[in-house]
Amino acid sequence: MNRKDMLGLRDVSREEITEILNTAERFRNVSERQIKKVPTLRGRTVVTFFMENSTRTRMSFDLAAKRLSADTLGFSASSSSTKKGETLMDTARNIDAMKPDAIIIRHSAAGAPHMLAKAFPWSVLNAGDGINEHPSQALLDMLTMRDHLGTLEGKTVAIVGDVYHSRVARSNIFGLTTMGAKVVVAGPGTMCPPSMTHLGVEVRHSIDEVVEDADVVMMLRIQRERLQPGMMSTVNEYSRFYGLDLDRLNKARPDVLVMHPGPINRGVEMSPAVADGKQSVILEQVTNGVAVRMALLYLLLGGEPIGGDANAV
Amino acid sequence: MNRKDMLGLRDVSREEITEILNTAERFRNVSERQIKKVPTLRGRTVVTFFMENSTRTRMSFDLAAKRLSADTLGFSASSSSTKKGETLMDTARNIDAMKPDAIIIRHSAAGAPHMLAKAFPWSVLNAGDGINEHPSQALLDMLTMRDHLGTLEGKTVAIVGDVYHSRVARSNIFGLTTMGAKVVVAGPGTMCPPSMTHLGVEVRHSIDEVVEDADVVMMLRIQRERLQPGMMSTVNEYSRFYGLDLDRLNKARPDVLVMHPGPINRGVEMSPAVADGKQSVILEQVTNGVAVRMALLYLLLGGEPIGGDANAV
Amino acid sequence: MNRKDMLGLRDVSREEITEILNTAERFRNVSERQIKKVPTLRGRTVVTFFMENSTRTRMSFDLAAKRLSADTLGFSASSSSTKKGETLMDTARNIDAMKPDAIIIRHSAAGAPHMLAKAFPWSVLNAGDGINEHPSQALLDMLTMRDHLGTLEGKTVAIVGDVYHSRVARSNIFGLTTMGAKVVVAGPGTMCPPSMTHLGVEVRHSIDEVVEDADVVMMLRIQRERLQPGMMSTVNEYSRFYGLDLDRLNKARPDVLVMHPGPINRGVEMSPAVADGKQSVILEQVTNGVAVRMALLYLLLGGEPIGGDANAV
Repeated sequence: MNRKDMLGLRDVSREEITEILNTAERFRNVSERQIKKVPTLRGRTVVTFFMENSTRTRMSFDLAAKRLSADTLGFSASSSSTKKGETLMDTARNIDAMKPDAIIIRHSAAGAPHMLAKAFPWSVLNAGDGINEHPSQALLDMLTMRDHLGTLEGKTVAIVGDVYHSRVARSNIFGLTTMGAKVVVAGPGTMCPPSMTHLGVEVRHSIDEVVEDADVVMMLRIQRERLQPGMMSTVNEYSRFYGLDLDRLNKARPDVLVMHPGPINRGVEMSPAVADGKQSVILEQVTNGVAVRMALLYLLLGGEPIGGDANAV
Repeated sequence: MNRKDMLGLRDVSREEITEILNTAERFRNVSERQIKKVPTLRGRTVVTFFMENSTRTRMSFDLAAKRLSADTLGFSASSSSTKKGETLMDTARNIDAMKPDAIIIRHSAAGAPHMLAKAFPWSVLNAGDGINEHPSQALLDMLTMRDHLGTLEGKTVAIVGDVYHSRVARSNIFGLTTMGAKVVVAGPGTMCPPSMTHLGVEVRHSIDEVVEDADVVMMLRIQRERLQPGMMSTVNEYSRFYGLDLDRLNKARPDVLVMHPGPINRGVEMSPAVADGKQSVILEQVTNGVAVRMALLYLLLGGEPIGGDANAV
Repeated sequence: MNRKDMLGLRDVSREEITEILNTAERFRNVSERQIKKVPTLRGRTVVTFFMENSTRTRMSFDLAAKRLSADTLGFSASSSSTKKGETLMDTARNIDAMKPDAIIIRHSAAGAPHMLAKAFPWSVLNAGDGINEHPSQALLDMLTMRDHLGTLEGKTVAIVGDVYHSRVARSNIFGLTTMGAKVVVAGPGTMCPPSMTHLGVEVRHSIDEVVEDADVVMMLRIQRERLQPGMMSTVNEYSRFYGLDLDRLNKARPDVLVMHPGPINRGVEMSPAVADGKQSVILEQVTNGVAVRMALLYLLLGGEPIGGDANAV
């Protein structure tokens, strides 16, 4: 892979995605060892720059960087000069002047990571920009699917919920269609408008329709803060029409995978029995997250070469 | 010691406590060196998970982990997904999926660390759970006492204040009685109810009674937030009846040790002259805190073997 | 240099400043390498103790410590026991008991760092105390000037804005006059009172007067929170009378350096065209900040000796 940045999967090729997933597979065992650390990025500076709250994504990237022996530096909305009215570009110019190697950015504005990537020499990793993309999440989702399905080619992935406002869904749609999978989406009309077919997906309005022939059902988190009044009458009603419970799951293929980007609203988008059930691979997604982020940092920053397995790192 | 977790001192044996204190003694000199670091836990991941505010305990554990060369990752109430409504178990499952080696948890719910310890393979260190236990604090207290008294066997330790609501007091009571010390407690009736004798302590209601024949006087912090209205009329009245000042201290044995878990409310539970006086070992407690926490992490995580002294680590 | 602390430049000699700047020059290349790390302070504990919000200064010190291989520990107002009513001295005694090597402190009270420096054996680095001093900022400013001007001796530095309330200005005034530079200040009467001549500077009231013959123009940030009502009618009026725009800059010497400690209020104290123009060295200041802070930590803590260049570290 010959990229400086990972901004989104819209323009990432099948070969590149395959290389990332293969590299992640090799890094995965590092986290299983007693000494969970390789010297690949020793002495590099990785800045996590989160202008929206996050726990798991920030921790996952931080851990990925530390397990590659990089130094990490945190930067969050609450402590930031942006509160003093500084623009994103000025903040970034200042970080730039401290000579970082990579910046992991989460920002409410779609395109913020792209703006930094164009302006600066260091690697930018998009950890979520508005409703645009969240590529590392989609890559860890795809790695989890590949683990179970062997390949993504020809598989059917159903994404259910507020697809329109989900950066996780968008990155998955780009990545999965590139890999030859078919994506069908379902949700209320305001969350899955017909125009989404332009992204190369099939739009349906009933969860039952998409669950029955899917290899993977990915349930999205309802982000109450992103919803406009009137989009759904109540959370209960949403849950009744679009939540995944055992009754619905029993109509799916017996080996269907259930995924969720977390954190789960238990009892809303999925019932606890489904979240913790035998088809759920939600926690494997989290484990793969660290591996995928190690792979991205390694590939973008050009760490020390690794051999046939990560033991040789 | 053959434990995965340190949840409380209620069921920890005299042999185990002795091993922890002896190990802490050997680690204590690491913090006195110029290079305050041993490679014992290199590549291990230690997560500090504080759902209640803390400065000294979090710092002390963080420093202990770093001085053992572990990687540390912070996780606090303010940045956490628990604000998004995620349950503790879901948050823990996510942390688990990132393959940590140990989690240091402080939580307002008694039993929260035990729940995690039962569910997960990594070590759980209880850094304070509700009004239940705070074992590392009691261990550092006992190390400080042992430094000065030679042994805990047969010694008398007075604990004064809101003993009933104090996790520090409870852990000390369990540990000290196990080690053969006698514990007497004093405070207002609502804070030292007669039922506390079930814990194997003597309950008295006057501070003067307990101070006069004690080897150690441990003053507790008044936690205003834990008090119900009506428990004490005013802070001043509390201070008059249960505060430790020089007058009271002069009636004690000349070599009595004065302890406090910090942070001190100066002028409330003890006067500045006592806090800074020659009998006060409050800051030795803090120093021993880092050593005890290094010992706990080392013993629970099975770090690289250490020789006769920590130089050999 | 034979000092324990860096509290301010008021009493720092020309030889000492020169040694700091020379050492910073040798460390500057560490941040340009792929492996941005030297083992100089391995195993040392550096605590950042910021009781006022900060992004760039905290990050810059944190990075400086990490690039010297020290372990860093953060401590901020929001997480601190000072919220529980603990005094600064008690908090510091607790940190002391954990055996740190250096504390970087920012505090709203002038003199807070000095109080700690007198009381404790570890190094104290003042990162800003009230309106008193901010010595590392002035040192990085002076390094930036020396880079371009060759020497500070005989040069004229204009400082414009709320000089009276600026710790950046005060430290620069002490350092620059020690190095043989001439300092002229300009601003509204309440911000540049005539009494400032006691500091060895010339006080003028028009920006145009000071810009025209300056080698360096340092624009200060307007700290709205420090201003009393009545000091200036509006931000716009301030900008009209004391802001630096291209018209004003064109009357200066063609090689004048434009500096600003950041974060910039664009359009207030300087126009974007000036901030981003070819005379601006604002981002070089930030880069030099990491190098100067590495030099300070190295010199104060007595790190491993370095040879003719930092490669030998």
